[in-house]
Parts: sequence; structure tokens; C-alpha cells
Amino acid sequence: MHPEGSVLVEFGDTRVLCTASVTEGVPRWRKGSGLGWVTAEYSMLPRATTTRSDRESVKGRVGGRTHEISRLIGRSLRATIDLKALGENSIVLDCDVLQADGGTRTAAITGAYVALSDAVDWLADRKALAGKPAKVLHRSVAAVSVGVIEGEPRLDLCYLEDVAAEVDMNVVCTGDGDFVEVQGTGESGVFARDQLDALLDLGVAGCAELTEAQRKALGK
Amino acid sequence: MHPEGSVLVEFGDTRVLCTASVTEGVPRWRKGSGLGWVTAEYSMLPRATTTRSDRESVKGRVGGRTHEISRLIGRSLRATIDLKALGENSIVLDCDVLQADGGTRTAAITGAYVALSDAVDWLADRKALAGKPAKVLHRSVAAVSVGVIEGEPRLDLCYLEDVAAEVDMNVVCTGDGDFVEVQGTGESGVFARDQLDALLDLGVAGCAELTEAQRKALGK
Amino acid sequence: MHPEGSVLVEFGDTRVLCTASVTEGVPRWRKGSGLGWVTAEYSMLPRATTTRSDRESVKGRVGGRTHEISRLIGRSLRATIDLKALGENSIVLDCDVLQADGGTRTAAITGAYVALSDAVDWLADRKALAGKPAKVLHRSVAAVSVGVIEGEPRLDLCYLEDVAAEVDMNVVCTGDGDFVEVQGTGESGVFARDQLDALLDLGVAGCAELTEAQRKALGK
Amino acid sequence: MHPEGSVLVEFGDTRVLCTASVTEGVPRWRKGSGLGWVTAEYSMLPRATTTRSDRESVKGRVGGRTHEISRLIGRSLRATIDLKALGENSIVLDCDVLQADGGTRTAAITGAYVALSDAVDWLADRKALAGKPAKVLHRSVAAVSVGVIEGEPRLDLCYLEDVAAEVDMNVVCTGDGDFVEVQGTGESGVFARDQLDALLDLGVAGCAELTEAQRKALGK
Amino acid sequence: MHPEGSVLVEFGDTRVLCTASVTEGVPRWRKGSGLGWVTAEYSMLPRATTTRSDRESVKGRVGGRTHEISRLIGRSLRATIDLKALGENSIVLDCDVLQADGGTRTAAITGAYVALSDAVDWLADRKALAGKPAKVLHRSVAAVSVGVIEGEPRLDLCYLEDVAAEVDMNVVCTGDGDFVEVQGTGESGVFARDQLDALLDLGVAGCAELTEAQRKALGK
Amino acid sequence: MHPEGSVLVEFGDTRVLCTASVTEGVPRWRKGSGLGWVTAEYSMLPRATTTRSDRESVKGRVGGRTHEISRLIGRSLRATIDLKALGENSIVLDCDVLQADGGTRTAAITGAYVALSDAVDWLADRKALAGKPAKVLHRSVAAVSVGVIEGEPRLDLCYLEDVAAEVDMNVVCTGDGDFVEVQGTGESGVFARDQLDALLDLGVAGCAELTEAQRKALGK
Repeated sequence: MHPEGSVLVEFGDTRVLCTASVTEGVPRWRKGSGLGWVTAEYSMLPRATTTRSDRESVKGRVGGRTHEISRLIGRSLRATIDLKALGENSIVLDCDVLQADGGTRTAAITGAYVALSDAVDWLADRKALAGKPAKVLHRSVAAVSVGVIEGEPRLDLCYLEDVAAEVDMNVVCTGDGDFVEVQGTGESGVFARDQLDALLDLGVAGCAELTEAQRKALGK
Repeated sequence: MHPEGSVLVEFGDTRVLCTASVTEGVPRWRKGSGLGWVTAEYSMLPRATTTRSDRESVKGRVGGRTHEISRLIGRSLRATIDLKALGENSIVLDCDVLQADGGTRTAAITGAYVALSDAVDWLADRKALAGKPAKVLHRSVAAVSVGVIEGEPRLDLCYLEDVAAEVDMNVVCTGDGDFVEVQGTGESGVFARDQLDALLDLGVAGCAELTEAQRKALGK
Repeated sequence: MHPEGSVLVEFGDTRVLCTASVTEGVPRWRKGSGLGWVTAEYSMLPRATTTRSDRESVKGRVGGRTHEISRLIGRSLRATIDLKALGENSIVLDCDVLQADGGTRTAAITGAYVALSDAVDWLADRKALAGKPAKVLHRSVAAVSVGVIEGEPRLDLCYLEDVAAEVDMNVVCTGDGDFVEVQGTGESGVFARDQLDALLDLGVAGCAELTEAQRKALGK
Repeated sequence: MHPEGSVLVEFGDTRVLCTASVTEGVPRWRKGSGLGWVTAEYSMLPRATTTRSDRESVKGRVGGRTHEISRLIGRSLRATIDLKALGENSIVLDCDVLQADGGTRTAAITGAYVALSDAVDWLADRKALAGKPAKVLHRSVAAVSVGVIEGEPRLDLCYLEDVAAEVDMNVVCTGDGDFVEVQGTGESGVFARDQLDALLDLGVAGCAELTEAQRKALGK
Repeated sequence: MHPEGSVLVEFGDTRVLCTASVTEGVPRWRKGSGLGWVTAEYSMLPRATTTRSDRESVKGRVGGRTHEISRLIGRSLRATIDLKALGENSIVLDCDVLQADGGTRTAAITGAYVALSDAVDWLADRKALAGKPAKVLHRSVAAVSVGVIEGEPRLDLCYLEDVAAEVDMNVVCTGDGDFVEVQGTGESGVFARDQLDALLDLGVAGCAELTEAQRKALGK
Repeated sequence: MHPEGSVLVEFGDTRVLCTASVTEGVPRWRKGSGLGWVTAEYSMLPRATTTRSDRESVKGRVGGRTHEISRLIGRSLRATIDLKALGENSIVLDCDVLQADGGTRTAAITGAYVALSDAVDWLADRKALAGKPAKVLHRSVAAVSVGVIEGEPRLDLCYLEDVAAEVDMNVVCTGDGDFVEVQGTGESGVFARDQLDALLDLGVAGCAELTEAQRKALGK
């Protein structure tokens, strides 16, 4: 009801609520630069997972994993936007995982793009952008997780697959099929160049499907 | 999908996700007592409100209002349960406000009772209770917010009414109409005994309706 | 010696040092509003109680109970004062419990009113109020704790009675007998409407006695 | 009323409440050593000073000055006690400054010794000491602040003198006139050996007077 | 002088002190598993950079970037070691940047491997390993940063190049040329598949050189 | 490479990296005063000691010992400098212990003076001082630790001696042999006046040697 952009993403059994909150003006250190600001915060509800995790607010500190994912989402979304054309407006993307079953960070990126797009439209309606709307959001972005399970490359791992994966990779692509970010980890061991190549192919194809779904969701 | 009990409560435009998480055993200081443990944590998503609030995890501390409400929910739910009959099991009730439009704490209590009831059934199915199921959850509990607006007592204030209220009261009642907790505050000024009496009447009646709704939701 | 208002309250064996600190100006977000600001902080010395508690400064966080009581004291005292007539001055009420034997929060409210009254006089002497002194502090406030013990309503519970109480209620009244705040909790179970009514009667009578004592202390 | 040892020290307008809290047993890392444990915590009420200071609990961290003074008090008091004869008991000395006018740390040490002595007697009465009472507390300790003001050595500086002092020194002595701790600082510049000597003479004499006062207070 | 393994890595003007600290036993949650534990902590001295940064200890929280790098180092080093053959021993790798000029995280991984190798030898000398030394550290690991500057792929970016890079990639490889981790980011925009391929080639070659340097440093 | 002043001090096996960071301007509360600001921060790398200590950044709070030493270094260095002649510039002295074997705080003071001197020269070269360079740094400062071991006064205790010392004293002197700070503690018991005198003599002589070494290091 309240946010300038809001979407509930479902990837399998994973559910992430992505909202975009617009405020006029930018943080103090950026004032007068003519540039806007886009940032992201990721969090999980305590019982989004099979066993309950303690709240980070109660522990009094944000954990390393949360920091890492928030930073990834922020970088990915900033790649889509021309901060000069945005003008001195700030957009915060909140990605809260209500239910988790693998791939929460890639679901968050994919959903946050839709919320961001709505927020840019909201600003455009209010004539609050410095540049033309089409120039502000000049690319789309989507993300998938891919992995190798029992030697086979696989798209969109659910939690049980994720735990079993020998290699785990997140691929973030633009709507044109270029890479924004690639992160691959050999969870149980290491991986060879040909495995890496197969995973990248799979990831690019997966992102293309999601790009299509985003276009539909946005009615474009 | 994951929790032992889970319900999404809607009171007007207020939406609270209440989950109950069961763990075997109790905190260390309670071990060997034969008593179970029920506690609650309340939180708001940053954009549940009309303007975005900073996350308490990022601020590094839980605010006074959050603490106060978590404690109220915990006390209210403990009034429904016989901790001896529960046996050495712990239940955490998480109440996360997805969208707020007044009355979030009373919605949370009302929903948490349903999630708690599911969790007790889950324990009963596993023969993990120390006493008989009916003895464990020996009362139901529901809560409403009532207030005086322009001199008139009113039930279930939405956010705009809440801000305008001269007196704001939370009434927590059992299914039998007894009080568990009463908290009344003169937000802009003070209130007389007859106003207090009128609000209590209204609160008791409101709780009775909710008790009925809880029974239906639980299929009882 | 130093504060603008200062009083040591004794309720039975409970001893609370209440001081009022005045500063010119208000917090940044309130500047230019023409309104003053009154806030309260409650704390217990580590050995105010029968066994020593760890300091909240050492634990690095203020506990939920402390937050809850500080907020209650602040709300109660703000009900007595016309913030416009106070003008852009800030008053902090510090209530430090030196020795605790039940009813520390109600003792704190009752004592803080006397300290606040002294502080308003101090400002009046310096011609620093925006309105007339009598208009600034237009009501007095006092508070008592009441409870039901072995079925009997009782005033001013000491610590041992407090622990044994079946219902525990804090009543905050103005000098005219109106309510500012009512908080009742069924500590071991629930309570019926007639018990609530008896406790309210007792609370109002107790506050009237304290109002009289405050008048004497202030030489009015 | 509650602590095992408790004293309110007055040095000029400085008032410090010193309490000693005894608990059976020692911290985990010390268990089985046969040694006791004595520690101290110093704190100031927010309005002990001419202007209000923020609470360290609210700031979420204990400041450097508080840490430094707590450690000094702890070291000074541990010099008086035979931890083996104390046995596996812990004593926490809380020194809370109610009103400050210079010399709060030396007043705290002097008062804490009296509270500690009462606590040792309390343990002796309960036959809870490992050694003979006289052996447990085998020395007394007292402390004064001395300084150079306008070229003159001076004892017991009040706040205004303290601020004006060219050299500021804390001298902690045993009842036999030996040193436990000496801390001298050139607040506005430096000091020569003869000034240091004169301050030490003055400090030793001041401690001797306080030792006498302690004996009287303890009825010895 | 003190650590079980210690090395000062120099990559251009970047200097990182890597130490390995061994303790017998593992964290509580891992006891009895028969598995060892390897973890890493990364930090920068405040003046390792061109302008001074505030200390994270003073800010009271570890930043997102520090967390992210500590986790990357830990994962990379755990890929080299057989935790079962290590037995229930813990090794902490501390990587402290004394001077920074780009590529601090990859320098840290490369140096930490040498410190870890020394620590494993130290344990082998004391017959404290569960398996054979050669089995414990069954792979080596090294890391480089590569990037695209003015359209050209480049190895080992210094700080000024790093800031100017269009794509920035960290490649972590084993001594056999397999990947442990690949992280590529389009800092100013996006990158195509052929750029990614060129960077991977360059990274693998760079890691091979470092593997050779590690062998020499370890006298193998 | 980066700092305005930087020195690696070696006292026996103790190694402290001291850097001076200059920034134009002073903290907000000091603006317009015409006075500069000099402050110090001390820290130990986790494995500077024989066993690893947890990082204060990870613990989320700076410990009492660290605070105490940082404050001592800051006071000592401020005694050498005329803040008016420095003008509205800030200098932060970072003292990071890479390896510890006793006397880290006195090594830090002695090294920080050299770094500070370089930083003042750097400001003089840029004509950024308010007064003449010779007036800004009008004194030098050096520090030693002295102690009594088996009844004998000793200079420059290493860690094993430090632990065994009956009395432990830090002496901070100017190049002219005046005292800036004297801190003596009876670690295992107490000390008499003649012991104190012998330690002061030894400390003054030790500081004189270090003053000479500082002059050489600075090429003066």
C-alpha cells in the first residue's frame, strides 16, 4: 500500500518482498553533485528458513552474509540506472525474504528491478527526474543461481540442491545478455574451466527468461 | 512452508505475519524445571509504514517501542498456556508487520494465538507434550485497540484515527471475557472514569468477535 | 547541588533520586516549532535490588524494561505541561533508583513531577518561559501501584507483595483525579471487570494522597 | 538495605555511593584456583555534574575515562586483600557518583575500602572465608587528589581548582604509608622533580588523615 | 616472533601481514566431530590508505567490505585443507593490511596460504595432526586481481588502475590451475563474454606465477 | 607510503608502527577557536602477543586497557605542541603494535613523537601552520617503563620481566628532563618512597637516552 514500488517475487518456494522507497534529496556527502543514489538492504525473517534464526536486530549487528548480499543487490541495480538522469533523488530497495528455498539473492535482484522500475515511473509522473525516464533506467537486470550437482550443470537450485551443489554460481545479466556480476564458488572443492563455461551458458539463458517475465510484469 | 504454526492476519489494511517456531528443550537457566517457555518478537519491515524507517539491525539496537510491544505479546500469550503441561519445549512467536495501518500490536496478539494453537497441535501430533493438549492451551486470547475520537469511543482505529485519538487503549481478553492486560493512555490529555468504562465495554465486545473468528480459522 | 530541580523520593524502602535538567533550545528536528521538549530516563543502580544486576552501560544496551519505564515516565510528565507555553526549552527528567522495594516506576513519576515543578520555577525566575508559569505546568501528576493479593485489592505493593500479586496495576492520575495512564496485567492469570473497578478506585484514592504530599513538598 | 557493604562518602561537595556485593563462587576462568576475585565499577549519574552528561547505557558504550577509573579502583582495592584467604568468593565494588565536585575517583577508593571491609565481615560472620578475617584484609587503602595551583601544592581539589591545576596527581596509600599507586599529569605543561616531591609529601599526609577517618567509621 | 606461521606479503606497494594462529580444539558446536576449523579475519590499519579511515573497533562494528573479504579468504583457504586430516585443531588466519595499493584481498589469500602451510608444518612437528601432513594441505591456493582498463585486460591492478577499471575480477586458483572462486564485477557498466574469457585466461596465468613464488618461499 | 609522518619503533622485540595523519580543519565543536587538535589511537594486532587475542572490532567495543593507553599517548603528545601555533589542523597519531614484548605504550609515545615531528614539518613545507615551526613543536617527549624485579630497579622491562615486576612505572619526560606524566603501580603489593625515588631517577635517565635517539632519527 505505502511504497513507491513494490513486488512479491516467487521463485519456486522462495518468496521475497521487494519494495522501493523514494526520498527527495541525497545523503549529505553527495549534495550538490547532481547525482542520485540507489542502495539496497536485504534481510530474512527469522522463520523464513527450516529452523529459526535469531534476528540481527536482537543480536545487535548485521551479519557478514547479509552485508555481502545487500552490497551485491545494490551494485547490480546501480548498473541499470543513470544516476545523473535520476537527479538528486534517493531510492532504497528493501528485499525481505518471507520464505526461503534457495536462490534468495538472485530472486531479490530480479524483483528489486521491477520495484525500481515502478519507483522511476512514480518519479516521472511527478516530473521529479533530471533526465528523460527512458534514459534513467537504461538497462534491465535479472539474476539466477546455477550450480553443478552430481556433475550436471543445473539452473535455479532449491535449498536441498544448493546444499548438495559442488559448484555454486550467481549470474547477473542485463536484458541485452551482458554480465553485470559473476560469482562462482567451489563449495565442495574446485571447478575446471569447462564447467565454468557450461554454467555461464546456463546462467545467461536463465536470465533471458527472467527478463521476459519482468517485461510482462511491468506491462511493457 | 517451514514454521510449526503460521498465519497472515489482516485487520483493515494492517497485515502481520505471525509464525510459531518450536524447539525441543528450554533455555539453560530453565532446564530441569519441567516448565516450557513461550516468548515473542515483534518487528516492522522498513516500508510497512507511509515513510520508510531505518532497520533496527542496521541501527544496531532494538528500539524502546519494539521492546515494549514484544513484551506485551509475550505476556499475553503466556496467559493462555500451562507451561507445566507444555513440558520442556520452547515456542517463539514472531510477529512481522508487512503493512501497517494502526493496531499492529493487537493484530499481532490475535494472530499469534492462532499460530501458537497450530504449534501446540503439532507438538500433540508428535506426542511431545507433557500434559493433555486441551490442558496445555487452556484459554484463548484476542486483542483490540479502542480509542476516543472527537469525544466518541471507537473500535479498531486505523493509522489516521490513531494519530487523532484523544485516548488510546489496548484491551487483551480471554475467550471467556476476562482481562489479561489493559493499557490506556491519554495521548492528548487525560480521560475520566466514564470514558474508561465505555472503552472497556467496547474492547470486551471487540475481543469477543475476534475470539469467534479465531475459532473459525482453527476449525473449532 | 547542580540540577535545576532535584528530589529524593521515599516510598516505603524504595528510594529514587529524581532530577530535572534544563537546557535552552530543543533537539534539531524540533527547532523553530515554538514547542519545548520534556523527556525522561529511568535507571537502577546495580545494587538497588536484593541481588546485583549488571550495568546496562557494561552490557552495551538498554533493556526492554528500562525502555518501557522511561517511556511511561516521559508520557506521564508531558501530560502536565503545555509545551507551547514552555517555549523552546528542553527538560530531561532523570530517575535513578538508589534502593528498590517495589513501585519504583510510580515513585519515579511522583518524584519527577516535583523536580519538574522546580525546574519550571527556575525558568520562570529567569524569564525564560514563553507563557505564564501557571499555564506551563497546568496539571499535577502522581502515580501508585495497586494489586490483588490473595483476592484482596492492595495499595503500594512492596517487592515481596509485588512478586505474589495476581494482578498488578499502575495508575497515573492528575491532581483533579483524571487518568493519564492505566496499565493492568494479570501476572498469574486473568482478572474480571469488578476486580479492575476495585483497583481503579484504590489507585485514584492513592494518587489523591500523593497529590497532597506533592503540594506540601512544593510549599503550595 | 540490600548490599553486604554500603557507604555514602562525602568529600567536600562530592558524594559517592559505594556498595560491595558478595557472590559465592568466582568467574568460570578462575574456578578451582582457590583464589577469590575483587573488581570495581565506577559510574556517574547523568546530573552529578554542573551540566548533564548522556548516560553511557544510552550511548551503548562505556567511555575511556570510566574504564580507566574503574580499573584504578579495582587495582587499589585488590592491594588490600589476600585473594587466597578470601577463598572462591567474588566481591564487586560499585562506586556511583551522585554529586561531583572534584576528586571523585579518590573518594570512591576511600569509600570502597569501607564497603569492602563490611563485606569481609559479612563473609566472616557466615564462616565463608578460606582464611582468618584479619589475614583477608591485611591492609587498608585510602586516596587523595593533590595538585599545583598558581605554583602552590594543594590537597583535595574541588572542581574549579581541578580545572585550574597545573599538575594533577592521585596518590593511593596504605594505612602504613606505602604507595599502592601514583598517577601524576602535567595538565597545562610539565612539572619538575621538586614539585613532584612536594605533592607526594602532601598526598601521603592526606591519606594518613583519611585512614584515621576510615578506622572510626569502621569502629576500629 | 609469536605466531605458528607468519609472512609479510608485498604485491607492488601493497603490504599485508599474514599470520596463522593455532589452538588445540575447535569451537564448541564442532566438538567431537573429528573435524578441524580454519577461519580468516581481514583488516586494514587506519592509515594503510591515502586518507585515514576510522577504526572499526572505534565505530563499534565491522563493515560490510571487511566481512565480505574475511569470508572470501576463509573459503579460499578451506579449499586447500582436509579438515578431517587436520583433526580437532583450529587455525585463525589474520591478514592485516599495513599499506594498501590495490589487490589487498588477493595478496592476503596468497600470503595466508604460506602462513597456513607453516602452521600445518608446526602441527606436524608436534605430531598433532590426525592425518599425514601431505594429506592435510592437499592443494595450494593463490589469487590475483585482473581488470579491463581502457578496453585492455590487465593483471595486478594498483589502486589508481583499480579505480579506473571498467571490469574488476578476482580469480582464486589452485596450484593445478582449477578455480576455487571467481568474482567479476562491471564497476562502470557491464562486460561481454569474450572480455570475461580474456580475464579468466590472464587470471589463471597470474595465479600460476604466484604458485611458483609460494613454492620457493616455502622451500619446496 | 601514504602518511604525513610514519615510523616503525623497535624496543627490544617490541615493534610499533606509528603514523601521523594530518587533516585540515578541526572537529566541529572546536571550529573557530584558532586551536589545532592532536589525538592518538593505540591498538594491537591480534597476534602481536604470545597467544592470539580477539579483535576489538569483532567484539564490537574498545577495551578499557586500549582506551587507557590511547588517552595516555594523546596527553603526552599534546604536551609537546602549541595548539595555537598549530592552527586549525588536526593530527591523528595511530600506534599499532605489530609485535609485543613489554613496554608497548612507552615505545608508542616515543615513536609517535617522531611521526608527529615529521607531520609538523610536512605542514610547515605547505605553509599551513599558524605559527613558526619551532614554536609549534616546542618540546620533545619520550617515555620508558621501569620496574622493580627481585628488589632491583630495572629499565625497559620485556614481557617476562613485566609480569614478574613488583612495581611497574611509566615515566614520560620532555627532552629537558621535566615530567609530563608519571604512573606507578604496585603490581604485587606496595612500594616505599625510596623505591619510588630510585625508579624516577632511572626513568629520567632512560628518557634522556631516547631523546638523543629521537634527535638522530629526525636528523637534528
